Amino acid sequence: MFANTPEPPYYAVIFTSIKNDQDEGYGAMSEKMLKLVQQQKGFLGVESAREEVGITVSYWKDRASIQTWKANLEHLKAQEKGKSAWYKDYKIRIAKVERDYEK
Amino acid sequence: MFANTPEPPYYAVIFTSIKNDQDEGYGAMSEKMLKLVQQQKGFLGVESAREEVGITVSYWKDRASIQTWKANLEHLKAQEKGKSAWYKDYKIRIAKVERDYEK
Repeated sequence: MFANTPEPPYYAVIFTSIKNDQDEGYGAMSEKMLKLVQQQKGFLGVESAREEVGITVSYWKDRASIQTWKANLEHLKAQEKGKSAWYKDYKIRIAKVERDYEK
Repeated sequence: MFANTPEPPYYAVIFTSIKNDQDEGYGAMSEKMLKLVQQQKGFLGVESAREEVGITVSYWKDRASIQTWKANLEHLKAQEKGKSAWYKDYKIRIAKVERDYEK
Protein backbone atom coordinates (compact mmCIF):
# COMPACT_ATOMS: atom_id res chain seq x y z
CA MET A 1 0.00 0.00 0.00
CA PHE A 2 2.84 2.36 0.83
CA ALA A 3 5.63 2.82 -1.66
CA ASN A 4 8.38 0.39 -0.73
CA THR A 5 11.24 2.88 -0.82
CA PRO A 6 14.88 2.08 0.03
CA GLU A 7 17.04 3.72 2.68
CA PRO A 8 17.35 7.50 2.12
CA PRO A 9 18.52 9.48 0.31
CA TYR A 10 16.09 9.23 -2.60
CA TYR A 11 13.74 11.72 -4.27
CA ALA A 12 10.03 12.56 -3.96
CA VAL A 13 7.90 14.42 -6.50
CA ILE A 14 4.92 15.92 -4.69
CA PHE A 15 2.17 16.67 -7.21
CA THR A 16 -0.78 18.61 -5.72
CA SER A 17 -3.73 19.32 -8.00
CA ILE A 18 -7.29 20.57 -8.28
CA LYS A 19 -9.34 19.03 -11.10
CA ASN A 20 -11.64 20.76 -13.53
CA ASP A 21 -15.19 19.45 -14.08
CA GLN A 22 -13.93 18.32 -17.50
CA ASP A 23 -13.01 14.71 -16.86
CA GLU A 24 -13.10 13.07 -20.30
CA GLY A 25 -10.28 10.65 -20.84
CA TYR A 26 -8.74 11.33 -17.44
CA GLY A 27 -9.28 7.88 -15.90
CA ALA A 28 -7.88 6.02 -18.92
CA MET A 29 -4.86 8.33 -19.10
CA SER A 30 -4.20 7.92 -15.36
CA GLU A 31 -4.12 4.15 -15.71
CA LYS A 32 -1.90 4.38 -18.78
CA MET A 33 0.57 6.67 -17.00
CA LEU A 34 0.57 4.48 -13.89
CA LYS A 35 1.60 1.49 -16.01
CA LEU A 36 4.18 3.48 -17.94
CA VAL A 37 5.79 5.08 -14.90
CA GLN A 38 6.40 1.68 -13.35
CA GLN A 39 8.63 0.80 -16.30
CA GLN A 40 10.83 3.87 -15.86
CA LYS A 41 14.39 3.56 -14.72
CA GLY A 42 14.83 4.85 -11.20
CA PHE A 43 11.10 4.71 -10.31
CA LEU A 44 10.61 3.51 -6.72
CA GLY A 45 6.87 3.77 -6.07
CA VAL A 46 3.85 6.06 -5.83
CA GLU A 47 1.17 7.01 -3.30
CA SER A 48 -2.00 8.88 -4.20
CA ALA A 49 -5.23 10.26 -2.68
CA ARG A 50 -7.83 12.84 -3.71
CA GLU A 51 -10.45 14.80 -1.76
CA GLU A 52 -10.67 18.58 -2.27
CA VAL A 53 -7.12 18.45 -3.50
CA GLY A 54 -5.36 15.51 -5.06
CA ILE A 55 -1.93 14.56 -3.80
CA THR A 56 0.28 12.15 -5.72
CA VAL A 57 3.77 11.49 -4.40
CA SER A 58 6.09 9.51 -6.64
CA TYR A 59 9.48 8.33 -5.45
CA TRP A 60 12.67 8.20 -7.51
CA LYS A 61 16.27 7.10 -7.23
CA ASP A 62 17.64 10.47 -8.32
CA ARG A 63 16.82 13.72 -10.13
CA ALA A 64 18.09 12.39 -13.47
CA SER A 65 15.35 9.71 -13.40
CA ILE A 66 12.73 12.38 -12.70
CA GLN A 67 13.97 14.47 -15.64
CA THR A 68 13.88 11.50 -18.00
CA TRP A 69 10.28 10.70 -16.99
CA LYS A 70 9.23 14.34 -17.40
CA ALA A 71 10.59 14.27 -20.99
CA ASN A 72 8.98 10.91 -21.93
CA LEU A 73 6.92 11.46 -25.11
CA GLU A 74 3.76 9.71 -23.92
CA HIS A 75 4.02 11.50 -20.61
CA LEU A 76 4.45 14.86 -22.36
CA LYS A 77 1.11 14.29 -24.14
CA ALA A 78 -0.51 13.54 -20.78
CA GLN A 79 1.05 16.63 -19.20
CA GLU A 80 -0.26 18.82 -22.03
CA LYS A 81 -3.80 17.42 -21.68
CA GLY A 82 -3.58 17.84 -17.92
CA LYS A 83 -2.58 21.46 -18.30
CA SER A 84 -5.16 22.36 -20.96
CA ALA A 85 -8.15 20.28 -19.81
CA TRP A 86 -8.12 18.26 -16.59
CA TYR A 87 -6.42 20.41 -13.98
CA LYS A 88 -7.72 23.75 -12.80
CA ASP A 89 -4.51 24.20 -10.88
CA TYR A 90 -1.47 22.20 -9.84
CA LYS A 91 1.83 22.54 -8.06
CA ILE A 92 4.85 20.26 -8.32
CA ARG A 93 7.61 20.05 -5.72
CA ILE A 94 10.82 18.09 -6.16
CA ALA A 95 12.33 17.08 -2.83
CA LYS A 96 15.22 15.00 -1.56
CA VAL A 97 14.14 12.56 1.16
CA GLU A 98 16.77 12.76 3.88
CA ARG A 99 15.14 10.60 6.55
CA ASP A 100 12.19 8.26 6.94
CA TYR A 101 10.63 6.11 9.64
CA GLU A 102 7.45 4.14 10.18
CA LYS A 103 5.14 2.64 12.78
CA MET B 1 -6.09 25.52 -1.31
CA PHE B 2 -2.43 24.72 -1.90
CA ALA B 3 0.11 25.53 0.76
CA ASN B 4 1.51 28.96 -0.04
CA THR B 5 5.18 28.04 0.25
CA PRO B 6 8.11 30.40 -0.39
CA GLU B 7 10.94 29.94 -2.90
CA PRO B 8 12.89 26.71 -2.26
CA PRO B 9 14.72 25.46 -0.36
CA TYR B 10 12.26 24.54 2.40
CA TYR B 11 11.20 21.23 3.96
CA ALA B 12 8.30 18.80 3.45
CA VAL B 13 7.10 16.15 5.89
CA ILE B 14 5.23 13.48 3.92
CA PHE B 15 2.96 11.53 6.29
CA THR B 16 1.31 8.51 4.64
CA SER B 17 -1.14 6.50 6.76
CA ILE B 18 -3.75 3.76 6.83
CA LYS B 19 -6.44 4.17 9.47
CA ASN B 20 -7.85 1.55 11.81
CA ASP B 21 -11.61 1.11 12.13
CA GLN B 22 -11.22 2.63 15.60
CA ASP B 23 -12.01 6.27 14.97
CA GLU B 24 -13.04 7.66 18.37
CA GLY B 25 -11.63 11.09 19.06
CA TYR B 26 -9.77 11.21 15.77
CA GLY B 27 -11.71 14.08 14.15
CA ALA B 28 -11.48 16.33 17.21
CA MET B 29 -7.77 15.64 17.61
CA SER B 30 -7.14 16.34 13.91
CA GLU B 31 -8.80 19.74 14.22
CA LYS B 32 -6.89 20.51 17.42
CA MET B 33 -3.56 19.60 15.82
CA LEU B 34 -4.37 21.60 12.68
CA LYS B 35 -4.93 24.71 14.82
CA LEU B 36 -1.84 24.06 16.93
CA VAL B 37 0.50 23.40 14.01
CA GLN B 38 -0.41 26.74 12.45
CA GLN B 39 1.00 28.50 15.51
CA GLN B 40 4.36 26.76 15.25
CA LYS B 41 7.48 28.67 14.33
CA GLY B 42 8.65 27.75 10.85
CA PHE B 43 5.33 26.19 9.74
CA LEU B 44 4.57 27.10 6.11
CA GLY B 45 1.40 25.19 5.25
CA VAL B 46 -0.25 21.79 4.87
CA GLU B 47 -2.07 19.76 2.19
CA SER B 48 -4.08 16.65 2.93
CA ALA B 49 -6.25 13.99 1.24
CA ARG B 50 -7.44 10.49 2.15
CA GLU B 51 -8.79 7.58 0.07
CA GLU B 52 -7.31 4.11 0.61
CA VAL B 53 -4.27 5.81 2.04
CA GLY B 54 -4.13 9.21 3.68
CA ILE B 55 -1.43 11.63 2.61
CA THR B 56 -0.68 14.75 4.62
CA VAL B 57 2.21 16.92 3.50
CA SER B 58 3.25 19.71 5.86
CA TYR B 59 5.81 22.32 4.84
CA TRP B 60 8.46 23.84 7.08
CA LYS B 61 11.17 26.46 7.00
CA ASP B 62 13.88 24.05 8.22
CA ARG B 63 14.51 20.76 10.02
CA ALA B 64 14.84 22.46 13.41
CA SER B 65 11.19 23.63 13.16
CA ILE B 66 10.11 20.06 12.34
CA GLN B 67 11.98 18.71 15.36
CA THR B 68 10.41 21.30 17.68
CA TRP B 69 6.92 20.40 16.45
CA LYS B 70 7.62 16.67 16.85
CA ALA B 71 8.57 17.29 20.50
CA ASN B 72 5.56 19.54 21.29
CA LEU B 73 3.78 18.07 24.36
CA GLU B 74 0.24 18.22 22.96
CA HIS B 75 1.50 16.80 19.69
CA LEU B 76 3.29 13.96 21.53
CA LYS B 77 -0.04 12.94 23.09
CA ALA B 78 -1.64 12.94 19.62
CA GLN B 79 1.25 10.90 18.18
CA GLU B 80 0.89 8.32 20.97
CA LYS B 81 -2.84 7.98 20.39
CA GLY B 82 -2.27 7.74 16.65
CA LYS B 83 0.24 4.96 17.13
CA SER B 84 -1.80 2.96 19.65
CA ALA B 85 -5.33 3.47 18.30
CA TRP B 86 -6.02 5.34 15.06
CA TYR B 87 -3.39 4.22 12.59
CA LYS B 88 -2.95 0.68 11.37
CA ASP B 89 0.21 1.76 9.65
CA TYR B 90 2.08 4.93 8.76
CA LYS B 91 5.27 6.15 7.20
CA ILE B 92 6.92 9.54 7.60
CA ARG B 93 9.44 11.01 5.18
CA ILE B 94 11.39 14.20 5.76
CA ALA B 95 12.46 15.83 2.52
CA LYS B 96 14.16 19.01 1.40
CA VAL B 97 12.26 20.73 -1.41
CA GLU B 98 14.85 21.79 -3.98
CA ARG B 99 12.59 23.02 -6.77
CA ASP B 100 8.91 23.79 -7.36
CA TYR B 101 6.73 25.03 -10.18
CA GLU B 102 3.04 25.34 -10.93
CA LYS B 103 0.48 25.66 -13.71
